[in-house]
Amino acid sequence: MQPFDDSPLARDGKVLILAYDHGLEHGPVDFEGLDGSEDPARTFEAATHPAVTSLAVQKGPAEAYYPSYEDDVDLLLKLNGTSNLWMGEPDSAVNCTVDYAHEIGASSVGFTVYGGSNNEIEMVEEFRDAQEAARHRDLPVVMWSYPRGQGLKNDTSPDTIAYAARQAHELGADVAKVKYPGSQAAMEHAVSMAGKTKVVMSGGSKTTDREFLSSVKSVIDAGGVGLAVGRNVWQREDPTHILDALEAVIFDETSVDEALDRAA
Amino acid sequence: MQPFDDSPLARDGKVLILAYDHGLEHGPVDFEGLDGSEDPARTFEAATHPAVTSLAVQKGPAEAYYPSYEDDVDLLLKLNGTSNLWMGEPDSAVNCTVDYAHEIGASSVGFTVYGGSNNEIEMVEEFRDAQEAARHRDLPVVMWSYPRGQGLKNDTSPDTIAYAARQAHELGADVAKVKYPGSQAAMEHAVSMAGKTKVVMSGGSKTTDREFLSSVKSVIDAGGVGLAVGRNVWQREDPTHILDALEAVIFDETSVDEALDRAA
Amino acid sequence: MQPFDDSPLARDGKVLILAYDHGLEHGPVDFEGLDGSEDPARTFEAATHPAVTSLAVQKGPAEAYYPSYEDDVDLLLKLNGTSNLWMGEPDSAVNCTVDYAHEIGASSVGFTVYGGSNNEIEMVEEFRDAQEAARHRDLPVVMWSYPRGQGLKNDTSPDTIAYAARQAHELGADVAKVKYPGSQAAMEHAVSMAGKTKVVMSGGSKTTDREFLSSVKSVIDAGGVGLAVGRNVWQREDPTHILDALEAVIFDETSVDEALDRAA
Amino acid sequence: MQPFDDSPLARDGKVLILAYDHGLEHGPVDFEGLDGSEDPARTFEAATHPAVTSLAVQKGPAEAYYPSYEDDVDLLLKLNGTSNLWMGEPDSAVNCTVDYAHEIGASSVGFTVYGGSNNEIEMVEEFRDAQEAARHRDLPVVMWSYPRGQGLKNDTSPDTIAYAARQAHELGADVAKVKYPGSQAAMEHAVSMAGKTKVVMSGGSKTTDREFLSSVKSVIDAGGVGLAVGRNVWQREDPTHILDALEAVIFDETSVDEALDRAA
Amino acid sequence: MQPFDDSPLARDGKVLILAYDHGLEHGPVDFEGLDGSEDPARTFEAATHPAVTSLAVQKGPAEAYYPSYEDDVDLLLKLNGTSNLWMGEPDSAVNCTVDYAHEIGASSVGFTVYGGSNNEIEMVEEFRDAQEAARHRDLPVVMWSYPRGQGLKNDTSPDTIAYAARQAHELGADVAKVKYPGSQAAMEHAVSMAGKTKVVMSGGSKTTDREFLSSVKSVIDAGGVGLAVGRNVWQREDPTHILDALEAVIFDETSVDEALDRAA
Repeated sequence: MQPFDDSPLARDGKVLILAYDHGLEHGPVDFEGLDGSEDPARTFEAATHPAVTSLAVQKGPAEAYYPSYEDDVDLLLKLNGTSNLWMGEPDSAVNCTVDYAHEIGASSVGFTVYGGSNNEIEMVEEFRDAQEAARHRDLPVVMWSYPRGQGLKNDTSPDTIAYAARQAHELGADVAKVKYPGSQAAMEHAVSMAGKTKVVMSGGSKTTDREFLSSVKSVIDAGGVGLAVGRNVWQREDPTHILDALEAVIFDETSVDEALDRAA
Repeated sequence: MQPFDDSPLARDGKVLILAYDHGLEHGPVDFEGLDGSEDPARTFEAATHPAVTSLAVQKGPAEAYYPSYEDDVDLLLKLNGTSNLWMGEPDSAVNCTVDYAHEIGASSVGFTVYGGSNNEIEMVEEFRDAQEAARHRDLPVVMWSYPRGQGLKNDTSPDTIAYAARQAHELGADVAKVKYPGSQAAMEHAVSMAGKTKVVMSGGSKTTDREFLSSVKSVIDAGGVGLAVGRNVWQREDPTHILDALEAVIFDETSVDEALDRAA
Repeated sequence: MQPFDDSPLARDGKVLILAYDHGLEHGPVDFEGLDGSEDPARTFEAATHPAVTSLAVQKGPAEAYYPSYEDDVDLLLKLNGTSNLWMGEPDSAVNCTVDYAHEIGASSVGFTVYGGSNNEIEMVEEFRDAQEAARHRDLPVVMWSYPRGQGLKNDTSPDTIAYAARQAHELGADVAKVKYPGSQAAMEHAVSMAGKTKVVMSGGSKTTDREFLSSVKSVIDAGGVGLAVGRNVWQREDPTHILDALEAVIFDETSVDEALDRAA
Repeated sequence: MQPFDDSPLARDGKVLILAYDHGLEHGPVDFEGLDGSEDPARTFEAATHPAVTSLAVQKGPAEAYYPSYEDDVDLLLKLNGTSNLWMGEPDSAVNCTVDYAHEIGASSVGFTVYGGSNNEIEMVEEFRDAQEAARHRDLPVVMWSYPRGQGLKNDTSPDTIAYAARQAHELGADVAKVKYPGSQAAMEHAVSMAGKTKVVMSGGSKTTDREFLSSVKSVIDAGGVGLAVGRNVWQREDPTHILDALEAVIFDETSVDEALDRAA
Repeated sequence: MQPFDDSPLARDGKVLILAYDHGLEHGPVDFEGLDGSEDPARTFEAATHPAVTSLAVQKGPAEAYYPSYEDDVDLLLKLNGTSNLWMGEPDSAVNCTVDYAHEIGASSVGFTVYGGSNNEIEMVEEFRDAQEAARHRDLPVVMWSYPRGQGLKNDTSPDTIAYAARQAHELGADVAKVKYPGSQAAMEHAVSMAGKTKVVMSGGSKTTDREFLSSVKSVIDAGGVGLAVGRNVWQREDPTHILDALEAVIFDETSVDEALDRAA
């Protein structure tokens, strides 16, 4: 386990993951808002913005597009995922091995665990294999820690998010990607539960700039190290402005107003 | 991952796969139209036509007939398949390993994934093993991407086909074999969703020459790279004419009329 | 894959497998007709008759009795099987590995696949492992291809038997052992569906000599290569006569009458 | 496969297994009759009696106590077992590997198969792995062959015991441990069904000396090679007398009366 | 298997395991009583108290905090565990391999088995793999032996606890961690059932000092070797006093009164 600050995931101890696994998880419907957003090259291009610390994609786009961006993008290979054509108890297919992720140039890996799913036991054991293989390859591990399933009614309650952050720590993730629990206090609670595991907020669906940046700001103020963001970036005509604003809030720790000014 | 144009699957960037896995998937009923069509040698013979870029068969026919055709046919080994004696939630047995496919001379491999099936998770994980083994053997991978199962009523709707194409891309297929989604526009949409993964149409049941060639033409015009065709070729008394016509439409990009003339 | 004529399974291109796996599959009830028939040594002795090309047994009798017969008997090790103490959806435990079969002297292996069973997927994947291991050991593979299970009412209809023969071919068996489909024409159909995979008839329960030899004759006339027979041989006081008759019909292609004369 | 007479399981071709796996299978309730009987050392001590050919225990007692008895006791490691805290369809956890059993000094191994259980398929495949590993280590294999489960009402009927003995033979056990089928004739039938696999009677619950020795005598007279006995030995204040009597009946083939005299 | 007294688990033949896996098993709710108790560093600090023989944590806290404490703390890596977000039949995910535990410095390992659960078979087989791997690494094994599941109404009855202790012995654990069975006599019974496997009491929820120490004292008097304790230590403002008292009772075998005096 490397010190987090030396990790390829972080820059100055902060994290901005651009996530682009929606083509698998949600399908083409997520690209409807903006023509061209279905083209992975466009998001790889966006990921060259200096604010982006890693680009999270599945194996296919990594194989096809990363070779053209290996000097400018840090690849976070998302090792599991599932289509929403299928609708059973939450689960996720491991569609890439750590060895292969390493072979095609990933500098970190991501893995979803649905705590509380009837498949939790199996997912945690698959995570174990991935986590230990990643340690042997010196690849830091981000857990998409998303409690979900039969027994869980509200999966973004502060208690559930705090448990999600703790579960990621207990199982050996370097970074826990959790949903926003609704307030800065709740995020502080989640961060304190995560021990030395770093916490990033999961971006969620597209919203206004101010609302979005405010929640990011509250994550940073709560001791989180940053953000994993998808649609709020690549669904925009020009992702540069919002990335400029995120850079301000996350890395320069500006106010939301200043960030909005810079990005204007 | 090799550049597609250098791939054994392609000739001038185009693909015409002759598929002959019906004996396993459908059984003898598919040979009823034409005496002798049950003989694999007849389809291996047809596959020597210069228009055919690969012949897709299961392990058994490959072992028994390919040795006599290795100079004239490119073997695409279909790695999974199921009889229709069995009728549960869609699934497919992996009946050949990549290593063995390589050993008997395959230059590419094929794999069915039924997105949306309750077996999707398991099939995708089997696909992962096949895909990564194929990368180590430099064998390009064609995914038969066929959403099917409990939750899917109409598996050839444009949205479903577009998702199928995207899923193949996200999971690392070189080529996505999808059903025809009903129009050139819908095919264009599917092609755009597939990123650098190439799209070929799945031939379907036997129809008139004009109707068949028109749909192939619209696939090419939509940016697809070609066709995987079975019964529309080997169920004919003389497969040569329709292969001539397909060669015209796919490789020479002629009109349907010209193609019909050439094949007359 | 060796040419069939050079295979240890065949003599002059014909096959007469003496099968003795009934102790596992049916239990002691099958030995009730004839005292002493439960003794494997008696059937090993019968298998030294020159008409018998292989003796098919499970691992236990092979380990215990084959060492005394290795000069006079060709051992076909049946790799899976199940007791009928158990009565679920058709399935079969793999109770011997190919490597171990090879180690104890088998010159060929046998494997049951119940096409149409809810366990078809798993059985076919187990068959794959056995078949590929057998190829690496140069052991030809006989598939007991017996469609059976939830969706199949009449598993000896000509269509089902033809599918069974084809499935064995598609999956890479050297020989398909199928039930008799009721007529020579139906057997011809099954044989034509099997491509280069050879077809043998499964013997079934004990019957009159004439009836039995007539069905064997019709298999040979239909292009089948022979027979796998159990109770019709080893349930007799003296198996020599019927083996003489089978030798006549299968290897010398005599009429049934002449065969009966010879064996009298 | 070694000749049975040279096997570490046998002495003069006879077998007396002292079984002490009750602590796992039945729990502390089996030790209630006699204070101190829960102490494995006491049963290891009893196993030093010259009549005892092997002591059958699970991994834990073997690890802890066998090192003090390795000169005086032959260790038969029971590889699977289950607590009766659990009450589902009969099954048994494989709690020791053959390699580990060998490492800690076992000279033979034991394995339960519940023929007729819905778990028969899986248990038989686990038995295969154990049996083949044991062959490579030259460790003879005893099958606890106990038909049990959904479809079996009376698991000690002569037919079921005969099938149990045959199943052990077909699957490659050196010795079949079966329940007493109720009469010497039934035991003879079971022995004849087992081929070269040797048959021993499973001791059952504690009874009178005469009744117990009579059933042992009838096993020997029926051609069985001996006994696996537990509670009838170690639940006694002084196991020596009954072991003396068993030695008489099994190894010296005395009458029951003489055996009772000797042990008095 | 090392002699227990030489084991890294023991000091003078006694054991005091400080357990801190509650963040995974129970979640943040267990930290509510005391601010800061969620910080693993605080419990690692407490574990430097000379009374503590090992600290039991999951992989994540071990990776993150043990490197700073490797000179002062003995690491017992708990190899499996589950969140209580999930509520099915008792089961536990194996989230760390023995090899990895060894790699990060563990001197012993822990494993939960829920005897009586419908998952008992699978858990026992996972335990086997862990136990044998641990033997090869010379890491002693503690079993959290907690009968639980469908068939068990009262899992702390003396009979169940005695069975739990015996099951741990039968399966090869060095130490059985069991619930307190309610009296010293019941504990003596459990200890006698465990053979050479040592027994420690599982601490349970927070209670008064006198009550707690009295139950610990009765464990020692019953022949148990000590305690695994969590909340009763780390939920206190200053864990030192209670650890001083535990040291007195366990290692110096003082009375409860003297222990309370020392710790005052």
